[in-house]
Amino acid sequence: MNYRIVIRTLGFILLFEAVFLLVPAITALCYKEAEILDILATMLLCGATGGACLLVKTNNDTMYAKESFVIVALSWIVMSLFGALPFWFSRAIPSYIDALFETVSGFTTTGSTILPSGAAIEALPKSLLMWRSFTHWIGGMGVLVFVMVFLPLSGGRNINLLQAESTGAAVNKLVPKMRSTARILYLIYTVLTLLQLALLVFDMPFFEAITTAFGTAGTGGFSVKGDSLAGYSAYSQIVVTVFMVLFSINFTSFYLILCGRIKEAFNTEVRVFLCIVAAAIALIAINLCLTNFGYSVGEAILHSAFSVASIISTTGFATANFDIWSPFAKIILVLLMFIGACAGSTGGGLKVSRVVVLSKGATHEMKRILHPRQVKKITVDKRIVEHEVVRRINAYFFAYILIFITSLLIISFDGFDLVTNFTGVAATLNNIGPGLGMVGPNGSFAAFSDLSKLTLIFDMLAGRLEVFPMLVLFIPSTWRK
Amino acid sequence: MNYRIVIRTLGFILLFEAVFLLVPAITALCYKEAEILDILATMLLCGATGGACLLVKTNNDTMYAKESFVIVALSWIVMSLFGALPFWFSRAIPSYIDALFETVSGFTTTGSTILPSGAAIEALPKSLLMWRSFTHWIGGMGVLVFVMVFLPLSGGRNINLLQAESTGAAVNKLVPKMRSTARILYLIYTVLTLLQLALLVFDMPFFEAITTAFGTAGTGGFSVKGDSLAGYSAYSQIVVTVFMVLFSINFTSFYLILCGRIKEAFNTEVRVFLCIVAAAIALIAINLCLTNFGYSVGEAILHSAFSVASIISTTGFATANFDIWSPFAKIILVLLMFIGACAGSTGGGLKVSRVVVLSKGATHEMKRILHPRQVKKITVDKRIVEHEVVRRINAYFFAYILIFITSLLIISFDGFDLVTNFTGVAATLNNIGPGLGMVGPNGSFAAFSDLSKLTLIFDMLAGRLEVFPMLVLFIPSTWRK
Repeated sequence: MNYRIVIRTLGFILLFEAVFLLVPAITALCYKEAEILDILATMLLCGATGGACLLVKTNNDTMYAKESFVIVALSWIVMSLFGALPFWFSRAIPSYIDALFETVSGFTTTGSTILPSGAAIEALPKSLLMWRSFTHWIGGMGVLVFVMVFLPLSGGRNINLLQAESTGAAVNKLVPKMRSTARILYLIYTVLTLLQLALLVFDMPFFEAITTAFGTAGTGGFSVKGDSLAGYSAYSQIVVTVFMVLFSINFTSFYLILCGRIKEAFNTEVRVFLCIVAAAIALIAINLCLTNFGYSVGEAILHSAFSVASIISTTGFATANFDIWSPFAKIILVLLMFIGACAGSTGGGLKVSRVVVLSKGATHEMKRILHPRQVKKITVDKRIVEHEVVRRINAYFFAYILIFITSLLIISFDGFDLVTNFTGVAATLNNIGPGLGMVGPNGSFAAFSDLSKLTLIFDMLAGRLEVFPMLVLFIPSTWRK
Repeated sequence: MNYRIVIRTLGFILLFEAVFLLVPAITALCYKEAEILDILATMLLCGATGGACLLVKTNNDTMYAKESFVIVALSWIVMSLFGALPFWFSRAIPSYIDALFETVSGFTTTGSTILPSGAAIEALPKSLLMWRSFTHWIGGMGVLVFVMVFLPLSGGRNINLLQAESTGAAVNKLVPKMRSTARILYLIYTVLTLLQLALLVFDMPFFEAITTAFGTAGTGGFSVKGDSLAGYSAYSQIVVTVFMVLFSINFTSFYLILCGRIKEAFNTEVRVFLCIVAAAIALIAINLCLTNFGYSVGEAILHSAFSVASIISTTGFATANFDIWSPFAKIILVLLMFIGACAGSTGGGLKVSRVVVLSKGATHEMKRILHPRQVKKITVDKRIVEHEVVRRINAYFFAYILIFITSLLIISFDGFDLVTNFTGVAATLNNIGPGLGMVGPNGSFAAFSDLSKLTLIFDMLAGRLEVFPMLVLFIPSTWRK
């Protein structure tokens, strides 16, 4: 383990965090809020600690897979530990664990909240609400990817870092240089965010439009309103629905569309994803019409589309309390929680491409049993999926299930019902936000014990960083020199 | 597809079923029950249909993997279709779907019941109760294995059949000849059943002792009492607990113990299994003492041990209504549902050996990420687990999850709560019997629609036959000549 390079990179991250904090600081200035002092204090702490880290010199900047994983995991942990301070300093969230939960939920684009009620959300100062939503935007694309846009982090080995931080099984280099790829991705991300902001700003105050755009872009789900997006017009709800779907699609596809390679852009993963979305919207809309919730057909389609997009993109905004829908509709939503978005998007969950490879693997194995002599390889988009990739996805799937189970056991000590526990873990591990039962769209995670909250904090990080970086921290051999 | 050999084997199965029906027929004679006529009619039908099948001649008895899978799947389906007739003819269970559910639940050693209440169970004629429990005993070890003890089914390719019907990832040949292996396994099975019968007969009427022994040996779970085993003495409950654990252990281990190869008998799977059992009993017993259910320490340990053994062995007997226990205790039980027993036992679930290989695969993959140059193989008991085995287990795991999800969706149409739906599918797919909520130890599957019951019937068969044989039926290429 090359400790020096780890510490130096953490230093850079903290300096960037100090810069990020300008956004809530400026908000506080605009609204003349006293929280400006808490935010400035945090900026100072970030800057000082970050600067101190950079005093550590290194003449060996090679970064192997091990260092990359550790850097990614520790960056996110450190960033969250400092990012929670404004909430805690200002006493807006009196418990530090709660403040940490809220911040991790922000950076990991989960959107689960410990604020006990809608009124408690609206009572937060605007500068802190802005910070809460801005963490979604930072976390969505990845903070190390952001740093990479500006700094050459290590000698050409950035691919490891990018792979450890971004979502999905494999990162494609769009252009030969990794830094240029990172720039293109962030550019697409920024343009899409601004586009949504432009569409929303007609229909709501600027502050609400920008926080909603941050929450959608990162597929996060924090809203500045107590009733999430229920109070907005159908126009705004439709805009958000469309953008939630867009931000769940592999950003590489947007790049390919810009290059005119439309056919490549709509690859298997994107096609399967869009089919799942369409099927789920149709099934739930029909079910809502039949089960007589008093929705008109239009309302049923709108609520169904919004909820499906919100859950599969792992955003977690709500326009309706789907916790009261029929078991059939709820089970579809729970399944979507696990499938999640496309690889290379800002969304969470298992990722559609992994589900595709796992399904192909199972079908393939069955064919092999029937016709042992015909050995074919698994292909996606006419390219062979290498044996190593299949194996890693299988290992990923099992590690994911193990974390799920362990978390479920720990939080069940608190004695809440099975649906709350099950969907609570699913909503955090898949970075969605709301679950069902006590943690449903109208509920919150406030009532859980500190131990449970720490467990769910781990789950949110494990979900966002795709399991392995967080698990690597627990392997003793990681820490050997 | 060699249709002739499939039909001939089904003929043998039906003739054997006619013989099996002698057991309830004799019971009916002893208790002078009118149901003797319904049983005789079924025997006649089995005999006639079976005889007719044997009129199909074949001069090509080669049986490839494809034929083996189809034979196993169809044998179990045909056997259940005929086995349900006595319940239906006698109007003891007026709906044929219900009778089929009960019979499949018997043969697959699930133990889920559609009889709406304890009183309805005790009201069944003794001959039918005997048939219900005897199906457990037949299904536990596998009916084709039984046939193989008496008949050479095909030219030396019995290994395929045995592998398709028995549980776990791989069948070890104990002795060079497959038929001799089948004989040894059935001998161990019979001796253990008789031993348990001998221990129980002191404490309860012979009829109850023998049905309980059948239910335990097959890890089935049907009881002739409305309150399952709650009414029996602590002595009987302890005997059943011990035998439930014994019948969850790989039968190969008993053979090795008899040969004096003690160290080999306690292989990784058995050791892991025993550790899980011990840990679960301890955790639940402590939890029961702390959560103040009015149990004494002794009662807490007894109930905990019985429930853990009953669930992990996938038997499903009950001495306490664990549906009212704390969420922590219930979540442990739900986890045990999925882990299941050892490979090569009569129990269901994923099987401990599969869980071991899946865990090792995930750890292994993580080490590979950290140290890409050190390529080691996964080993269990110091033997290398071949790449094919790991891949097949991963495919199995995913196919299993897919069936679980699809079933959950279908039965959720009935509108029951999530806990009932989730544990209802878990209890049938893992061949356990009771779940939680409406299908808890004091509940039943009576209220589900026919569509849901057919889905759960499929799940019970898929669980018992380990997924692939049932799925193979749906692949068009299976049916080509």
